[in-house]
Amino acid sequence: MSGARPFFEVLAADPSSRARRGRLHTARGAVDTPAFMPVATGGAVKGATPEDLRRLGAQLLLANAYHLSLRPGIEAVHELGGLSRFMGWDGPVLTDSGGFQVFSLAQLVERNDDGVRIRSHLDGSLQSLTPERVVEIEQRLGVDVLMPLDDCAPYPSEPGRLEESVTRTARWLERSRAAWSGQGALFGIVQGGVVAALRERSAELSVALDLPGYAVGGLSVGEPRELFYETASAGADRLPRERPRYLMGAGTPQDLIRLVSMGYDLFDCVLPTRNARNGTLFTSRGRLNIRNARFARDPGPVDPRCPCPVCARFSRGYLRHLAVSGEILSAILNTVHNLAYYLGLVAGLRRALEQGRFPEYTSRILCELAGGEGERE
Amino acid sequence: MSGARPFFEVLAADPSSRARRGRLHTARGAVDTPAFMPVATGGAVKGATPEDLRRLGAQLLLANAYHLSLRPGIEAVHELGGLSRFMGWDGPVLTDSGGFQVFSLAQLVERNDDGVRIRSHLDGSLQSLTPERVVEIEQRLGVDVLMPLDDCAPYPSEPGRLEESVTRTARWLERSRAAWSGQGALFGIVQGGVVAALRERSAELSVALDLPGYAVGGLSVGEPRELFYETASAGADRLPRERPRYLMGAGTPQDLIRLVSMGYDLFDCVLPTRNARNGTLFTSRGRLNIRNARFARDPGPVDPRCPCPVCARFSRGYLRHLAVSGEILSAILNTVHNLAYYLGLVAGLRRALEQGRFPEYTSRILCELAGGEGERE
Repeated sequence: MSGARPFFEVLAADPSSRARRGRLHTARGAVDTPAFMPVATGGAVKGATPEDLRRLGAQLLLANAYHLSLRPGIEAVHELGGLSRFMGWDGPVLTDSGGFQVFSLAQLVERNDDGVRIRSHLDGSLQSLTPERVVEIEQRLGVDVLMPLDDCAPYPSEPGRLEESVTRTARWLERSRAAWSGQGALFGIVQGGVVAALRERSAELSVALDLPGYAVGGLSVGEPRELFYETASAGADRLPRERPRYLMGAGTPQDLIRLVSMGYDLFDCVLPTRNARNGTLFTSRGRLNIRNARFARDPGPVDPRCPCPVCARFSRGYLRHLAVSGEILSAILNTVHNLAYYLGLVAGLRRALEQGRFPEYTSRILCELAGGEGERE
Repeated sequence: MSGARPFFEVLAADPSSRARRGRLHTARGAVDTPAFMPVATGGAVKGATPEDLRRLGAQLLLANAYHLSLRPGIEAVHELGGLSRFMGWDGPVLTDSGGFQVFSLAQLVERNDDGVRIRSHLDGSLQSLTPERVVEIEQRLGVDVLMPLDDCAPYPSEPGRLEESVTRTARWLERSRAAWSGQGALFGIVQGGVVAALRERSAELSVALDLPGYAVGGLSVGEPRELFYETASAGADRLPRERPRYLMGAGTPQDLIRLVSMGYDLFDCVLPTRNARNGTLFTSRGRLNIRNARFARDPGPVDPRCPCPVCARFSRGYLRHLAVSGEILSAILNTVHNLAYYLGLVAGLRRALEQGRFPEYTSRILCELAGGEGERE
């Protein structure tokens, strides 16, 4: 962290909510917030080139330290210039630790206070992850934002398991900070399921370590929507205003708008890229399944109000043809469109915040999403 | 065919061979020859966008009238602006008839003097193709170059079968010409296997119809290489110098150079796109299999002398990682590189022809291909 310029600045804020327009400063360039990070788990966004991502306005990508440590291996990435150069991206990169993979891939072999042991989904080999090892991997990858190893509990979990998750996440965070050289920005993570008291304790323990940014984890793991929103909202309030706040793994366009109004700055989600590959496209009026027969002779663009290169050139009829034919170009064009939607959504929120019209802008967007021709979310 | 400007002009020729630098004029723009057509069978080049294709210098794409008639159907394409607009390409398009599919997909139900009946590979339905129907489909698609229905015999075939193929191809060509409105350029096709006398008769019958261009078909179907070259070479000589010559379905980079020196102008081949998807990359020094472990930590580009956007930005190590990880981006980047190679190869041949240094240029290219670090062809 350089002394002269803070890692994060708040440039504008909406007085009627906790939404803010900010900027992260990394060694590889600035990231305007609220920001959406396209997901590049294994070092590539599925269906988009780095050039596509830049043109669409992406400034920060999310990759996975654990996945990259398995393949191609940390030393290979290091020798090839570090993760950002390796990917041909050259901009800022954030890596998740793999802590969530322990949870979601269900390949956990052992978890104790020292760390976790996972069976590799690639070759069945036994992999150990400790807080120190994760930071070491991320520093060797040379990333700009490091997410530490955390202990994410499923929903629902017994109170005892959630307490363990909070305590362990905090201890691991201390060990992560001790292992951290100061290169890149290490974020703290808050756990605690949907139990307010545990979330509060977890936030206090994280914030006490005075880190460059904070993330709320352990949500979007199956809890009811209202508990998700309640927990996220209270969670943002417990984090310092002058540090960036990252809500991990969210969400739909509506989620992003609500989470920005709660004061979150950073988001990542597989929805735009994964949905693209099965033909679900985001529009200002909700989602479309482009495989639907009603689009077969539709000459219009996916979204008449979308400025993306796909909407400029291709008809719904053609995109439907590509999807039902299983053409690779279907995944490419759908991915570019969906990322354009997500990146355009956060760009619109940033502009609205700058211009002091966040409430009107978000009301209009939400109203259009709810009332459009697409299927409702 | 407009009266003022010929469909094809020869701009320069190599005095030591039959190679020539030419230009096709279509309603959708010029095509500089020798030209390589990327293959877009079902209305999309696998792994490349129209924007990629333009940037790489493609001027003419090849699609398949029969495939498009099955899916999405001719009327859908017509309603969506015709094939070129449908694809978001807007440049010239050539369609093959589907005659070769009868041969290669082996789904022939019946073939007689009237036409062929094929069982659809998509839904098992029975499809009839006649010369008139193919021209009608191609005109409805609004393509720039129409290939007529021909009767392609396998290798080896009995003399009787080859004679039938020649006679039928010629009769079908007459019927195709009669059905043709004059919109787009209808090419004649020469058949005859590897029997010189039959090739000669087939060429005479085709040329007698005075069509805008001529194609040599029925090669690259399993015949020995030397018979391929012999037949192709004699075949070019039997076609009028003032019309474009298209060698269907060829070939390797070495093939293209030899075929250009024989006087061929147009080429199509699935090699660059299909090979891209299995990790085989073309370079000035031969082919590489990017999946090879020796590339895991290789920081260099695929081909240090390649000016393509992939070689400018990505290492062999990264491309190997994408290929072994099965990332979609692997197909995208490999396709862009391989098409850049093929399109760059014909662009280099055109420049050499313009500058009167075709023999030296092709000697150098062939020597480098034979002696390089890649596996030999």
